[in-house]
Amino acid sequence: MSTQNPVFIPGPTNIPDRLRRAIDVPTIDHRSSLFAEAFKPAVDGVRRVLKTRDGEVVIFPSTGTGGWEAAITNTLSPGDRVLAARHGMFSHRWIDLCRRHGLEVEVIEAEWGEGLPADRFAEVLAADRGHGIKAVLATHNETATGVRSDIAAARKALDEARHPALLFVDGVSSIASMDFRMDEWGVDLAVTGSQKGFMLPAGLAIVGVSRKAQAAMEKATCARCFFDFRDMLSAYQRGGYPYTPPLNLIFGLVEAVKMLEEEGLPAVFARHFRIAEGIRKAVEAWGLSLCARDPRLYSNTVSAIVVPHGLDGTRVVTHAAEKYGVAFGVGLGEVAGKVFRIGHLGSMTDVMALSGIATAEMAMADLDFPVTLGSGVRAAQEYYRSTNGVSHRISRKAA
Amino acid sequence: MSTQNPVFIPGPTNIPDRLRRAIDVPTIDHRSSLFAEAFKPAVDGVRRVLKTRDGEVVIFPSTGTGGWEAAITNTLSPGDRVLAARHGMFSHRWIDLCRRHGLEVEVIEAEWGEGLPADRFAEVLAADRGHGIKAVLATHNETATGVRSDIAAARKALDEARHPALLFVDGVSSIASMDFRMDEWGVDLAVTGSQKGFMLPAGLAIVGVSRKAQAAMEKATCARCFFDFRDMLSAYQRGGYPYTPPLNLIFGLVEAVKMLEEEGLPAVFARHFRIAEGIRKAVEAWGLSLCARDPRLYSNTVSAIVVPHGLDGTRVVTHAAEKYGVAFGVGLGEVAGKVFRIGHLGSMTDVMALSGIATAEMAMADLDFPVTLGSGVRAAQEYYRSTNGVSHRISRKAA
Amino acid sequence: MSTQNPVFIPGPTNIPDRLRRAIDVPTIDHRSSLFAEAFKPAVDGVRRVLKTRDGEVVIFPSTGTGGWEAAITNTLSPGDRVLAARHGMFSHRWIDLCRRHGLEVEVIEAEWGEGLPADRFAEVLAADRGHGIKAVLATHNETATGVRSDIAAARKALDEARHPALLFVDGVSSIASMDFRMDEWGVDLAVTGSQKGFMLPAGLAIVGVSRKAQAAMEKATCARCFFDFRDMLSAYQRGGYPYTPPLNLIFGLVEAVKMLEEEGLPAVFARHFRIAEGIRKAVEAWGLSLCARDPRLYSNTVSAIVVPHGLDGTRVVTHAAEKYGVAFGVGLGEVAGKVFRIGHLGSMTDVMALSGIATAEMAMADLDFPVTLGSGVRAAQEYYRSTNGVSHRISRKAA
Amino acid sequence: MSTQNPVFIPGPTNIPDRLRRAIDVPTIDHRSSLFAEAFKPAVDGVRRVLKTRDGEVVIFPSTGTGGWEAAITNTLSPGDRVLAARHGMFSHRWIDLCRRHGLEVEVIEAEWGEGLPADRFAEVLAADRGHGIKAVLATHNETATGVRSDIAAARKALDEARHPALLFVDGVSSIASMDFRMDEWGVDLAVTGSQKGFMLPAGLAIVGVSRKAQAAMEKATCARCFFDFRDMLSAYQRGGYPYTPPLNLIFGLVEAVKMLEEEGLPAVFARHFRIAEGIRKAVEAWGLSLCARDPRLYSNTVSAIVVPHGLDGTRVVTHAAEKYGVAFGVGLGEVAGKVFRIGHLGSMTDVMALSGIATAEMAMADLDFPVTLGSGVRAAQEYYRSTNGVSHRISRKAA
Repeated sequence: MSTQNPVFIPGPTNIPDRLRRAIDVPTIDHRSSLFAEAFKPAVDGVRRVLKTRDGEVVIFPSTGTGGWEAAITNTLSPGDRVLAARHGMFSHRWIDLCRRHGLEVEVIEAEWGEGLPADRFAEVLAADRGHGIKAVLATHNETATGVRSDIAAARKALDEARHPALLFVDGVSSIASMDFRMDEWGVDLAVTGSQKGFMLPAGLAIVGVSRKAQAAMEKATCARCFFDFRDMLSAYQRGGYPYTPPLNLIFGLVEAVKMLEEEGLPAVFARHFRIAEGIRKAVEAWGLSLCARDPRLYSNTVSAIVVPHGLDGTRVVTHAAEKYGVAFGVGLGEVAGKVFRIGHLGSMTDVMALSGIATAEMAMADLDFPVTLGSGVRAAQEYYRSTNGVSHRISRKAA
Repeated sequence: MSTQNPVFIPGPTNIPDRLRRAIDVPTIDHRSSLFAEAFKPAVDGVRRVLKTRDGEVVIFPSTGTGGWEAAITNTLSPGDRVLAARHGMFSHRWIDLCRRHGLEVEVIEAEWGEGLPADRFAEVLAADRGHGIKAVLATHNETATGVRSDIAAARKALDEARHPALLFVDGVSSIASMDFRMDEWGVDLAVTGSQKGFMLPAGLAIVGVSRKAQAAMEKATCARCFFDFRDMLSAYQRGGYPYTPPLNLIFGLVEAVKMLEEEGLPAVFARHFRIAEGIRKAVEAWGLSLCARDPRLYSNTVSAIVVPHGLDGTRVVTHAAEKYGVAFGVGLGEVAGKVFRIGHLGSMTDVMALSGIATAEMAMADLDFPVTLGSGVRAAQEYYRSTNGVSHRISRKAA
Repeated sequence: MSTQNPVFIPGPTNIPDRLRRAIDVPTIDHRSSLFAEAFKPAVDGVRRVLKTRDGEVVIFPSTGTGGWEAAITNTLSPGDRVLAARHGMFSHRWIDLCRRHGLEVEVIEAEWGEGLPADRFAEVLAADRGHGIKAVLATHNETATGVRSDIAAARKALDEARHPALLFVDGVSSIASMDFRMDEWGVDLAVTGSQKGFMLPAGLAIVGVSRKAQAAMEKATCARCFFDFRDMLSAYQRGGYPYTPPLNLIFGLVEAVKMLEEEGLPAVFARHFRIAEGIRKAVEAWGLSLCARDPRLYSNTVSAIVVPHGLDGTRVVTHAAEKYGVAFGVGLGEVAGKVFRIGHLGSMTDVMALSGIATAEMAMADLDFPVTLGSGVRAAQEYYRSTNGVSHRISRKAA
Repeated sequence: MSTQNPVFIPGPTNIPDRLRRAIDVPTIDHRSSLFAEAFKPAVDGVRRVLKTRDGEVVIFPSTGTGGWEAAITNTLSPGDRVLAARHGMFSHRWIDLCRRHGLEVEVIEAEWGEGLPADRFAEVLAADRGHGIKAVLATHNETATGVRSDIAAARKALDEARHPALLFVDGVSSIASMDFRMDEWGVDLAVTGSQKGFMLPAGLAIVGVSRKAQAAMEKATCARCFFDFRDMLSAYQRGGYPYTPPLNLIFGLVEAVKMLEEEGLPAVFARHFRIAEGIRKAVEAWGLSLCARDPRLYSNTVSAIVVPHGLDGTRVVTHAAEKYGVAFGVGLGEVAGKVFRIGHLGSMTDVMALSGIATAEMAMADLDFPVTLGSGVRAAQEYYRSTNGVSHRISRKAA
């Protein structure tokens, strides 16, 4: 596959040249004071992106999956009950991870394409008078379905039930691309990675840890060592790290936050909305629909496009890769074959998006999908040219 | 301007990652045997690209302009007469360069958009019984107008007149992207640079020198030192270089030739034709025409698109740069304002081309050009999808 | 601190330019077939370096500490007894990790500076008739003390006691720099990272897993998910990876193995011996001694140098960093202050080593250590010049 | 040859990582406003390094040799008389270049190892009442002999003779490493390249042009086109460049000046002196002497070391390269075989220098030079450790 064309997978994203350079560094002694000089801005920068004042930020040489594990094992104990919804592959995997660590997961099944069922969370939490539920798991952005859930609604469900459970949020494919408000939403554990909104290669798990989560840390008995927050936080205090840190990605993270803040987080989010909206215009023009059931659920980082009945979404992906050298995402789990996905997060411009739309269109035409060649591109062009450079407010409806 | 989007200037081209890496090297002692080990494959590789068996290849830390100067000053003497056609900015500049070196240039003016006027060359050469004309200058690909000339026809004009003049060819924007046959066409001096078909940054002037040109070298009295072929060729003999060589670009050149040969030169040329043809389909769909007057003249590396009367091609370029972060080429000299140019050479895919077409379309629509949004993209998509992966013969007509 | 001078920390090592380039890659779709094409050679290459035919190789986006955790949690169950010696900071930490995962560790305390006490292992294993001990932990190279232990002796202890316990070996700072024979020594779990002998940045935990360990995997009940071998191995079977792989380091690992094999593993080991031996000659000339008690224990990747009584080894390190911009390693744990360490593994030449020796000498002189300036350099020079380029057999005694 | 060891050639120098990254850029449209944004700081930065207020700075995609040619052809006319001294290979080559351009060179032969003979210049200039001499050529730092000449003395010779000739200075291996005062010394044409004090790869010729030289430009009739200052300066006025600019090196030049100014030019010069002085201490300890006849002539960028009678300096260089993978410079021209050279300019630390000294020592010992192993290193260590970090005034004598 060519590395000339952009990728349209929902992470890892295209890496900006500036970040390529930032991580291309020689070896530096990680036990010298240089480490703390590099690491502190990384932690502080992530804190600003998460919008947390009191939360700690812990960074592991790992991936989002490691971040989930760290969040769980540091604050819960085997046998603890957690509440979660399953409405996509990533919420599914997180549930699986909890179970492997001996947690008892109360799963609310929802349609793939639906968001987090806040009302059903509310019911369960209200009924849990004994506060047996220790944690609520929410997937901010279901990468499998292109659905963004309402984390504030999950918080509201907890608050209205006056329930003390911790709120865990998987923000892997949302943080740094879509608005995330750790403190305002009362998120206790916010998990992400380096390879999505931060536009770096995979290799960092990044976890925001609220004060409440830090308190829980002391009592949690899940086994952990590599992922132990306590080792991390006490090392950070001394300007150190409990083992060899992934310094090049930490340098990259500092530079990534710099890029995000130079553009301005609101502008970054608006750009993601705008690019996503152009892709949605294309999908509409194709006569297709998104897996996400409702515009309020539309993700600005990934779009899962439902293919016409009887056709195979996976073939769009393999065909586009083989014939055009362009990478899209296949459907996973329950929506395997039923959708194909366009990732549009991180380092992305409208011009890049247009090449993705054009390619998807060609691939579908090649496979005899009932899609008019050029229709999606035109719809997206129309949208992009009318919004580019315009200081547009993000619409209530979809952002 | 964003560095995320591809550039569509007629050089320097987009640089493939592989070449970015090839030129990112630490300092190596250029007086060690490592130099010759790196340099010989560069020279040999270029020789294969030029399709010359007996010609020497000389490489300067310079640009195409330096290549022209080297070609002229090493083989001609002040007062010598040379025959040239002016039909674009680059043929114009070469004429100017000759005059500054004291040559007497017999200029045949041709329309910008026309190719080299072989018949008029034939007339002049036939009339030059005394062989006062020492050289004929031909611009293989006029980057300003997107016109590829017929070098074989220039050779034929010389041969039919049994004229001994040297044949100089500016192949800066053709070599390594379009077929070039130094020996078959009897080219005596072939000039190119690193930043076009070789897909590297600017910094190398590359000159092919036939045996006949080498013989002329001994009698030429134009002053030269930095550009002296003799110093170069005698240094090469000893595995050296007359001054500090641009080693990183030489490493890059070796890798570039490797890339070209892995793809296969015929495939490289076919790809350039195919990408160019898609762009021409778009231009047709827009209801516009190329500056090149005839399909036989169509360049496969750059298309100069004539804008509708009363509109300004330069504005398309500045607007696309400012609003979309995409670089096209403005019209130069006589066609300033009358055309805008899409460069499509070097490291380019059909998918990249589509993003350029889509952007040009948006820019024209923004500027109220009478162009239907999406029309060009659709025409190119149709062409690309029907030809991609197909082992297509290059049509007689346009390639 | 300057990045111009080499580092002399016992990892991460200096990164060769070739590996810097290998990991500097754009995003590639890790769900495409390209992933398996890159990953398989990485796994196969590591297998050759570990010298295992039947063992599997598992690679995590993590560090050596994660590798320990993976080895433990995938093959043991809470409450299992393991036998380990503590004779340095890294053996100490591994013991701590085991305990955090609920294992019962029978610790044999040994002097820091001693190797693994194979005879005492033999006694304990012989006495363990009921085979309550499930695993024996060995640290091949104690990075804290510069001591290389005899893994074959640990195997012998197990064999002579006909004991079925698994043999775990921490080879983080030995593998790919010193001879390691996974199959011959009957190692069941071999742990290393990317940032030592493989000369890459930190970010990969690499674990060799014997067939016996794979069988143990099925019964182990330690909680794990991110580090689960089963997910890894089944994903590998399908040409996949259970989550987002650290592709750039995997590309780097392939290239690292290529470099090691181009040099030849025996030559790599001989080079490490030779460079280390030069440093040992310098230490001797300084009138100092190594922390390692016996030449048979001398590590070829790191030397811990005992400073004269009453002086502070840590000051050598901070002084060298501040005044000369050169990084050495401080003493850790029980030998804090008592030693300073010179790392000499990975990408290292005798010429680089000489600059480290010269700097250590200046730093010691500055701090009024009773060391003759130039004495160590001279001893090392004498050794290096008499051995460089000589096809020398590694002496029985120290290699 | 290994790329792990530093090089000790008198340019190209070791390239700092920061500059490696600065030049590793994707293609940017050089006809966009981005060009001027990058170019202006490059020109302004060089102006500060040259210490000129009124001079223009012209930058070519070329090398120092091209810079000489540009300086000559833009300000002189065939037949013009120039005064030059020959006391090394580079002064020799410049004289040759002048002659090839039709100038009449009055050569004052001086010993190789001597500096510019200001007194003899004074005599000749005083005698030239008719001001037939149009230019005086001076080599600030003779890279072949490690001799730095007194440019102020050349100016004085001109001034005292009230002679209007232009003063040309080859500062290729001095500028940005040793103090250079274009305005104060009344230098009319100052020539350098990218690969010396600016620590970049070869590829830029950089020329400072005084007002007087600019005036001369209008009347000069030497043929030039690629190197024409007028095209350059008028293009710069418009924020352009007369042909394709070497953008990556221009970005690098901006960053190089930033690095120099962050360190501070006086500190850069002091560092070069200090490193050079350590090497001179080593030479003295070896019982050898420099080619430079007098401490006032000692170059701080390159030392040419005279080998004992009957021995061959070139063998030191080839032996060090083959056996130790370290590059030194051979003797050139009249001193071929009689000296070997250690380059110590650009990106260099005392620690790096020590590895060069240690290697030279080993190589000489291998070749049975009467040199005590370790003696030079020790002398340099003593000097470096007593001066490092000390805010030392540069001694009158040698700097």
